[in-house]
Amino acid sequence: MAINSSTKWVYTFEEGNAGMVNLLGGKGANLGEMSSLGMPVPPGFTITTETNAAFFDSGGKLPDDAIEQVRQAMKDVEEAMGRNFGDPDDPLLMSVRSGARKSMPGMMETVLNIGLCTATIPGIIKQSGNERFVYDAYRRLITMYSDVVMEKAAGIELEDEEMAVRPQLEKLMDAIKEENDYELDTDLTAQDLKILCEQYKAKVKEVLGKEFPDDPWTQLLGGVGAVFQSWRGRRAIAYRRVEGIPEEWGTAVNVQVMVFGNLGEDSATGVAFTRDPATGDPHFYGEWLVNAQGEDVVAGIRTPNALNNYCKQPGQNDTLPSLEEAMPEIYKQLVGFRDALEAHYKNMQDIEFTIERGLLWMLQTRVGKRNGMAAVRMAMDMLDEGMIDEKTALMRVDPEQLNELLHPMLDPAAEKTAKKLAKGLAAGPGGAIGKIVLSSARAHELGKKGENLILVRIETSPEDVDGMHAAKGILTARGGMTSHAALVARGWGKCCIVGCGDLEIDYKERTVRAAGKTLNEGDWISMNGTKGVVYKGQLPVVDTDPDTNKWYKKLMEIADRTRKLGVRTNADRPEDAALAVKYGAEGIGLCRTEHMFFEGSRIISIRKMILAKKKSGRIEALAELLPFQRQDFIEIFQALEGRPATIRFLDPPLHEFVPHDEGGQKEMARAMDVTLAEIKEKAESLHEFNPMLGHRGCRLGITYPEITEMQARAVIEAAYTVEGSKAEIMIPLVGNVKELSNQKQVVMDIFQQIKAERPGQEPPEIKIGTMIELPRAAITADCIAEEAEFFSFGTNDLTQATLGLSRDDSGKFLPVYLEMGILSRDPFEAIDQDGVGRLMEYAVRKGRSTRPDLKIGICGEHGGEPSSIRFCHHIGLDYVSCSPFRVPIARLAAAQAALSDS
Amino acid sequence: MAINSSTKWVYTFEEGNAGMVNLLGGKGANLGEMSSLGMPVPPGFTITTETNAAFFDSGGKLPDDAIEQVRQAMKDVEEAMGRNFGDPDDPLLMSVRSGARKSMPGMMETVLNIGLCTATIPGIIKQSGNERFVYDAYRRLITMYSDVVMEKAAGIELEDEEMAVRPQLEKLMDAIKEENDYELDTDLTAQDLKILCEQYKAKVKEVLGKEFPDDPWTQLLGGVGAVFQSWRGRRAIAYRRVEGIPEEWGTAVNVQVMVFGNLGEDSATGVAFTRDPATGDPHFYGEWLVNAQGEDVVAGIRTPNALNNYCKQPGQNDTLPSLEEAMPEIYKQLVGFRDALEAHYKNMQDIEFTIERGLLWMLQTRVGKRNGMAAVRMAMDMLDEGMIDEKTALMRVDPEQLNELLHPMLDPAAEKTAKKLAKGLAAGPGGAIGKIVLSSARAHELGKKGENLILVRIETSPEDVDGMHAAKGILTARGGMTSHAALVARGWGKCCIVGCGDLEIDYKERTVRAAGKTLNEGDWISMNGTKGVVYKGQLPVVDTDPDTNKWYKKLMEIADRTRKLGVRTNADRPEDAALAVKYGAEGIGLCRTEHMFFEGSRIISIRKMILAKKKSGRIEALAELLPFQRQDFIEIFQALEGRPATIRFLDPPLHEFVPHDEGGQKEMARAMDVTLAEIKEKAESLHEFNPMLGHRGCRLGITYPEITEMQARAVIEAAYTVEGSKAEIMIPLVGNVKELSNQKQVVMDIFQQIKAERPGQEPPEIKIGTMIELPRAAITADCIAEEAEFFSFGTNDLTQATLGLSRDDSGKFLPVYLEMGILSRDPFEAIDQDGVGRLMEYAVRKGRSTRPDLKIGICGEHGGEPSSIRFCHHIGLDYVSCSPFRVPIARLAAAQAALSDS
Repeated sequence: MAINSSTKWVYTFEEGNAGMVNLLGGKGANLGEMSSLGMPVPPGFTITTETNAAFFDSGGKLPDDAIEQVRQAMKDVEEAMGRNFGDPDDPLLMSVRSGARKSMPGMMETVLNIGLCTATIPGIIKQSGNERFVYDAYRRLITMYSDVVMEKAAGIELEDEEMAVRPQLEKLMDAIKEENDYELDTDLTAQDLKILCEQYKAKVKEVLGKEFPDDPWTQLLGGVGAVFQSWRGRRAIAYRRVEGIPEEWGTAVNVQVMVFGNLGEDSATGVAFTRDPATGDPHFYGEWLVNAQGEDVVAGIRTPNALNNYCKQPGQNDTLPSLEEAMPEIYKQLVGFRDALEAHYKNMQDIEFTIERGLLWMLQTRVGKRNGMAAVRMAMDMLDEGMIDEKTALMRVDPEQLNELLHPMLDPAAEKTAKKLAKGLAAGPGGAIGKIVLSSARAHELGKKGENLILVRIETSPEDVDGMHAAKGILTARGGMTSHAALVARGWGKCCIVGCGDLEIDYKERTVRAAGKTLNEGDWISMNGTKGVVYKGQLPVVDTDPDTNKWYKKLMEIADRTRKLGVRTNADRPEDAALAVKYGAEGIGLCRTEHMFFEGSRIISIRKMILAKKKSGRIEALAELLPFQRQDFIEIFQALEGRPATIRFLDPPLHEFVPHDEGGQKEMARAMDVTLAEIKEKAESLHEFNPMLGHRGCRLGITYPEITEMQARAVIEAAYTVEGSKAEIMIPLVGNVKELSNQKQVVMDIFQQIKAERPGQEPPEIKIGTMIELPRAAITADCIAEEAEFFSFGTNDLTQATLGLSRDDSGKFLPVYLEMGILSRDPFEAIDQDGVGRLMEYAVRKGRSTRPDLKIGICGEHGGEPSSIRFCHHIGLDYVSCSPFRVPIARLAAAQAALSDS
Repeated sequence: MAINSSTKWVYTFEEGNAGMVNLLGGKGANLGEMSSLGMPVPPGFTITTETNAAFFDSGGKLPDDAIEQVRQAMKDVEEAMGRNFGDPDDPLLMSVRSGARKSMPGMMETVLNIGLCTATIPGIIKQSGNERFVYDAYRRLITMYSDVVMEKAAGIELEDEEMAVRPQLEKLMDAIKEENDYELDTDLTAQDLKILCEQYKAKVKEVLGKEFPDDPWTQLLGGVGAVFQSWRGRRAIAYRRVEGIPEEWGTAVNVQVMVFGNLGEDSATGVAFTRDPATGDPHFYGEWLVNAQGEDVVAGIRTPNALNNYCKQPGQNDTLPSLEEAMPEIYKQLVGFRDALEAHYKNMQDIEFTIERGLLWMLQTRVGKRNGMAAVRMAMDMLDEGMIDEKTALMRVDPEQLNELLHPMLDPAAEKTAKKLAKGLAAGPGGAIGKIVLSSARAHELGKKGENLILVRIETSPEDVDGMHAAKGILTARGGMTSHAALVARGWGKCCIVGCGDLEIDYKERTVRAAGKTLNEGDWISMNGTKGVVYKGQLPVVDTDPDTNKWYKKLMEIADRTRKLGVRTNADRPEDAALAVKYGAEGIGLCRTEHMFFEGSRIISIRKMILAKKKSGRIEALAELLPFQRQDFIEIFQALEGRPATIRFLDPPLHEFVPHDEGGQKEMARAMDVTLAEIKEKAESLHEFNPMLGHRGCRLGITYPEITEMQARAVIEAAYTVEGSKAEIMIPLVGNVKELSNQKQVVMDIFQQIKAERPGQEPPEIKIGTMIELPRAAITADCIAEEAEFFSFGTNDLTQATLGLSRDDSGKFLPVYLEMGILSRDPFEAIDQDGVGRLMEYAVRKGRSTRPDLKIGICGEHGGEPSSIRFCHHIGLDYVSCSPFRVPIARLAAAQAALSDS
């Protein structure tokens, strides 16, 4: 950016508008916009983002002509207000606030009440008639200014944080309160505050070695410089790294006249939303407080009044006058502004206003945050109202927000007063209540009786799936977002909290200790899996059925019409498949057959197979499994009603089916009538250094073709049984086309056999394809496509191999990487587009170069994550597959991806 | 191939030549060639490889016109010999042999003595005057024919192999020998053999249900069909899969008149090499036996006579007459043929000849196998003789053969008579003798006294390196070609045998049991690491110093002049670096710093660092390591004399430095004065599910920057100390350019500090680069090259990640894959060019798109493997790096790669 003598550094609010966000920042542009709409905005001006660059270029100084322009702009403000900055009789007070292109809430600095000094205090007292108000404002100025301008912006870093100026000042305040036995800050009298201000100034001198400036212009320019400086503050840098905001954007600074809502009964302050942010109801919604400052509304010390009758909360503020009742004229004016803002921004706005001595001032407008329910309803309402078009309506809902519509939730009101027991990682959204049960076997038993249960374990393993399935919620003391518990729970849409280190679980005593309390097995607890909080007792649960929500149904209808990607589900059980179909899944993208192996007597058979010393023994054990597998597939095909099912053949290493603890091994030895030593020996011989890279996937099917044969028979016979079945047999962990040819031949041989066994019967549609989950598979996709009739990206494993990163072992450094900004997102959550993504793109291109109509999907966890879905759309996949509860999310995300094409 | 009535299926030897290998096979073409050179080849003809295809196309039948052409060709043969096939008075006998394009030794079938039947036997007896000879030939015909033609080619497969016809016939022979108390087959009389032939024919009928054919033409056509059929025999298919020979090539069949060297004292048979295959000496070299068949020469029952004085072996056959002495005219004729063949083929030939009743017949000529020493000498001699050019001379030596010139060897003569104890995998070439030592600590101790030791362990771990270094050879009961022992040994050029399952090692009793013997610690054993054989006692060792071999030196001089690839070495110690320089290394391509951490007191310091709870504790422990590391690097830089050294920073996960067994942990607790519980807890907290994909490489340096700081300081200070040092600091396991930026900054900060500490001193040349060992690094090579000043492919890890294949865990399925032909080579041995190779090629292209002068090398094990070196040359790497002992191999392979360009 070239700086020359004619550079315009400063824009009054009247000069700005919403199109100037890059130059004026979001706040400044919106203040300008409101000004243009003719709303009463406290006068002020914006110093541009370009000034920030110039400020850093000249080593932290404002350009001389910028200072000149500030002085000129202040003159305009003084004129508009008819009052002067620093005037002893009736001075203006100013605020200095940051305002970047993108909101960076709480990351940069603000200084309020600028202009208060020895010379102006008496005048303000006279004007306001409120000495306490003035000294309180002065105290706040000293605190903010010394902290922000004199300490932080000056680059003073104290090793002991307690020695910094702000805590030192707070100590003085605490002392005076203690002395006078006050409880609240508001108990302090004007006299107390006056004394405190003198103490503050002395302490600032003591700590920082400099006087607090008693000159309004010094305060103002110091404040402006400090806000610019705060762009390079530690918090801001960290935030930008995470959010990907470029350093060179810089912030603008807004200098604005202070208005006060706490100057008496004709003053007030409030916040409002142009529609109800909790439900989406198109009523004006908000709260206000008479004789108060903005922060009092949010602080929760006083119960705020309702804006109008609609907003009154029974038992809370329904006896307090609404703004509509107390100040009907002002309310009417505000409603006018509300309508104008919605019409102008075509979105729900979150506004702040202050009434100073009977005059309404608009302080801020911005797009209002809303919950999922409200987002869906507002989008559809605004579409109906003709305010926005379909495309805009679709883009208005964050796909993740649909979670709220799909899972039962704890009643938010009840949560506020409930007894919090512990906090962990929010691994499975929604709410659940149930009795604590500490063993999966017991959960399985009690679950049959229909009891509400929460399975509480230190961690879970594949052996726990029966119990996990029986429980309403799963709570573990260890593990991360990709632990076994988290993965399984997400797959089932089950409420789940993991890594809840606060819990001390004693399996022997059958107790759980948390927050100083001891709970016994059978005690009730409640979980909020969306936030990761555990409560004592039974909280009320709010159930939601999206099918009864007309706005949701309409949104999904538009989404389905818009999207180009198919959406399938990952489902291992018939009930999951049925649920996913209800949620709009167009088939199964991943049916993992191994989960079936843990149920009931099947685990005995699979272990028999593992222990068998000869092929004949393995074939015998597999024959026991065949009827179970076939029945599972029959039920799955029935649930799908003709939709396709991609069935992955056995994938995990065999040692996952053998218990590793002596207890489990003893049990297994008993159940199977062999010696413990034999079990131990087998477990040891199956041990692997890097099981992720070991004897698993098609490597099992190649070394033990009888496993593939049994699975092929189960799938094909089931497909024969259920008319219209479409089976897609997926061979896992292929890295070399010859592996696929080998397994394909085994399957085709069985298919031929079955055909021969059923002459005259129409054979079902069977396709054979592979997971692309090894880098080598992606690299040689052209060769693999010679044999594969479809691809499905297994992005969990593909990420592990491509990045050389074990999901289970990354906990020691991945958080550090995220914090340092080496990674911007967890690659197991969102596809690493630059690495794994490039491989995927290459594989799609190469695969289709061999077989132009190759069907390609994704079945890794990423298939339900919106940014990854967008990526899959752009590289031309045919479908994504995700857990049943994420199917609607994927449908919406796919639609949004399709919109981003045009 | 189109078949039409004019297809020529049969070529007489006179019609063939060496250019017709594809049609006539190698054997047929060479017989043709010798015929053309005017040498006496027993007349015959070749049935083409095309006939084989036609044979299979028509379901295993010869085309009618092919049979017609065979009959015609037989007429020509009869005419040439003046004898007739099936003539009762003076019949011709014929052989039928396979002959594919590429030699497939022992993989296909042969039938000899065809034409012997009731009608012709009396005539042959009369002609030969040797009834015993005739019945012995008849017995052989029945055995071969019934096995090859009547059983195998007919597709008869018996479940019990003992029930097959050949073992049944052998039982009859054993019975007659037992009955007569004979020891050798040669003890059987003519009468015995005559009886045996009758028994044989009856048994054939009994086992196969068919009569042995008594008609010469049935025998001949049956034999031809059976040889064609054997192309699809199980052994042949398996061999082709491994060797990558296409199924469609097919074999030719050679039908040739039998000549006999066992028809009396004027008959003889022999094999000869045109030069000495053991030394390369340009003397005619060979053996012969009077009145014998070809198989007698190789069977070793009779000691063969020498061809000439040069070949006489003292104490063996120096008293027997040489062919030159016994049949000077024939010898002279043979020498003429020798000269003609060498002049014609311009290579050393391996020939077979037979003298039948004073007439010399040339049966075969082919390029002779030779050992490494001989290969080098022959190539250089022939170059000097003007027989071949430099390019041909370079290509004549298989780079792997140089191994023989670089390692001491057990005396081959002594090995013949030594007591074999066990056989394992040949993991480190050469020979070694020493006393058994069963613990590394003891080996380390005894090694200081200069004792010759063989370290014998069940397996080795990084804690054993001191002991391994002290030993002359390493022998383990477990582990494969890529086990720890094998890797370390190869790196040091140490004799090593692994996976020697025959050994029972008892650490407690300090004994080793093998081959029914119990050896104690301290007993002498000898190892042939090239073959994987262990002997009892001290065998003589033959030392070789390539520097004294003028042919080797000349070869290397030509190689260095020809190659374009640089050759560096992987060396962790100064002595290895010095050795590699002596072998021609141009620098270090990989210096692994972690091996240094195991020596002496260093392991204590590294463990202190691991146990430290705070950064300050780690810094303290690292400070103890600094002087050691610096000194190591000083010595390495000194050994390199200004050549560059690529130094890889700490790579393995920290748990590799903590003992996993309780004994070791106790010892560690004692040494470090902490509780065992503390050690155990640490070991557990460091445990990883997939260490290969865990907290290692730069992930360590990023989470513990103090480690990188210490290593940077050690390298840079050492480089300052040794003038002219060139240090290339290599950051391991980078997958994301930001990881490299981070570590580069840490190193650069230290470099700045050191520069500041040494004002006025010229700073050394420091480059910072990275390993490309993760697929993501290859995929994002363009980004990584922004920061990296060089790349080095870590193909071991790159292979593991790309293929999703743990080297340590692949033992359960990799052998199956190789056997089934899913893989043609172990990807840890030779670069997987279609997978890993494509990634490498991509990374080279992308890396150089960012930084055109990017220096790129390879430091994985593949850097010393000829086919991988050729690949590295073709994708444009700057250098390969391998263990010191493989440096000459790499130099030659690189030269051969360069030749393959033109």
